[in-house]
Amino acid sequence: MIVYLNGAYLDRAAARVSVDDRGFLFGDGVYEVTRAVRGHLFAHPHHLRRLERGLHALELAWPVGLGPAELTTVSERLLLENGLADGEATVYVQITRGGEGVPRQHVFPPASTPPTVFVAASRFPSREDLRRRGAAAITEPDVRWGRCDLKTIQLLPNILAKQRAEAAGAYDALLVRDGLVTEGAQSNAFMVLDDVMRTHPPGPRVLTGVTRDVVLEIAAELGLPVREEAVHAIDLSRTSEVFFTGTTTDVMPVVQIDGRPVGTGRPGPVARQLQEKLRERLDAVTASPLA
Amino acid sequence: MIVYLNGAYLDRAAARVSVDDRGFLFGDGVYEVTRAVRGHLFAHPHHLRRLERGLHALELAWPVGLGPAELTTVSERLLLENGLADGEATVYVQITRGGEGVPRQHVFPPASTPPTVFVAASRFPSREDLRRRGAAAITEPDVRWGRCDLKTIQLLPNILAKQRAEAAGAYDALLVRDGLVTEGAQSNAFMVLDDVMRTHPPGPRVLTGVTRDVVLEIAAELGLPVREEAVHAIDLSRTSEVFFTGTTTDVMPVVQIDGRPVGTGRPGPVARQLQEKLRERLDAVTASPLA
Repeated sequence: MIVYLNGAYLDRAAARVSVDDRGFLFGDGVYEVTRAVRGHLFAHPHHLRRLERGLHALELAWPVGLGPAELTTVSERLLLENGLADGEATVYVQITRGGEGVPRQHVFPPASTPPTVFVAASRFPSREDLRRRGAAAITEPDVRWGRCDLKTIQLLPNILAKQRAEAAGAYDALLVRDGLVTEGAQSNAFMVLDDVMRTHPPGPRVLTGVTRDVVLEIAAELGLPVREEAVHAIDLSRTSEVFFTGTTTDVMPVVQIDGRPVGTGRPGPVARQLQEKLRERLDAVTASPLA
Repeated sequence: MIVYLNGAYLDRAAARVSVDDRGFLFGDGVYEVTRAVRGHLFAHPHHLRRLERGLHALELAWPVGLGPAELTTVSERLLLENGLADGEATVYVQITRGGEGVPRQHVFPPASTPPTVFVAASRFPSREDLRRRGAAAITEPDVRWGRCDLKTIQLLPNILAKQRAEAAGAYDALLVRDGLVTEGAQSNAFMVLDDVMRTHPPGPRVLTGVTRDVVLEIAAELGLPVREEAVHAIDLSRTSEVFFTGTTTDVMPVVQIDGRPVGTGRPGPVARQLQEKLRERLDAVTASPLA
């Protein structure tokens, strides 16, 4: 696999960063994962805007010579060079505050310190079978920090929750904070309650996922009743459908929570319609227009 | 500077980790900073125990062949080889879940994946002048995650708070959660209120700092009234003394908060006594016994 690191295209095994890198020392960076279909990036302007918001919140500038347009070019080149321009793939982009050669200190390094930019493409991890059958989930306390709206590499709580899900034979965890379902450890969460599709409203407690927003658009087109209002964890037992959404998650129906069936115990009509319409949008993607 | 990375001693500039390293991708690791006097590690058993607790919480084992005894040997060798065996220095240890060659995924890599171990020694950043004069602090919302008792490399909120302090000309930030002072962005916080020395009790909202514990021991020896009970931010204006403690912080008197003087606006007698007694303990340190 060829990856991009700070201006160079090199073999993944040769792609190494300094131990001084603030990504490695502090988790001081942001990332994006974009889905690609036949070499074309899906909803890329949306990902680029979120990346920009993250950079801004961390007081990071776009790397010199690598703005949104160049990042798109790099991503498309990696898809091509790695034989991923057919079928589906994902492109991972990470930007950290760099820091090579700068002594470790919490405060930002000199403004002249170049950020570290890492881009890699991979085959899309299709879980189509699981999406058809539906997945299991567990509930877990949401112990993440107060800026979950930023897509940063501060992912230890997400990892630990996801690992607990894995250990329980589940696909992901439904995170619960102050009695409310916020989102998944690696996805957004939707619940159909009293015939209304519900998800946590935007704000510092959730990431406004790209697929979340696409799914909300589709739901509006289909005329499905939707409310961006959090669901109480105690009402999970009354939901007729639950599903996760995300770039690699797609629309993943949840048919069991903490061992108890959701609704009929099979994927429901809302999730199935959204899967189908998302598929149509993915298949319609062509060369990505820039933000 | 010679550093230690995964079994090798090499020049810091040559010390590089894979882009797959979960430290770099997820902030999936723990660290310690230990103070050294004349080549001897101060309170090292305490640091090793905390490191072990962190590894355990992250479900990481001690790296094969690198338990507490070997880590001590590595640390002492780095102090010697880098000409830091005279005067004062610090030793930084970081252990991440590794991941080289493993495709990026939230769930843990195969159990056979070796962790990454990075150890480096540096000259102690003495701020003796500032400790004598006293420092300024700002208050900042504490937006960290729910496991601040673990010394992990999830440090972005700490960095951002510390940077805001720096931008305001202050030394550190007093973090406030639910109206209570928890600790500093890079230190523990003590406040003298109504003649009682107060600090946030141990628990998931604060790190039980090594220097915090040493200072509590010293206070007990001196017969100073102490309560491990959080102070309300609104009571900061009534404190007669405030000070930060930490391995690189030592005992740092805070003489100004958000632009307003603390007590007399000069370091107070409690902080001064603790500085002196800590100094005595540091000067008495000899070859470190193991935990």
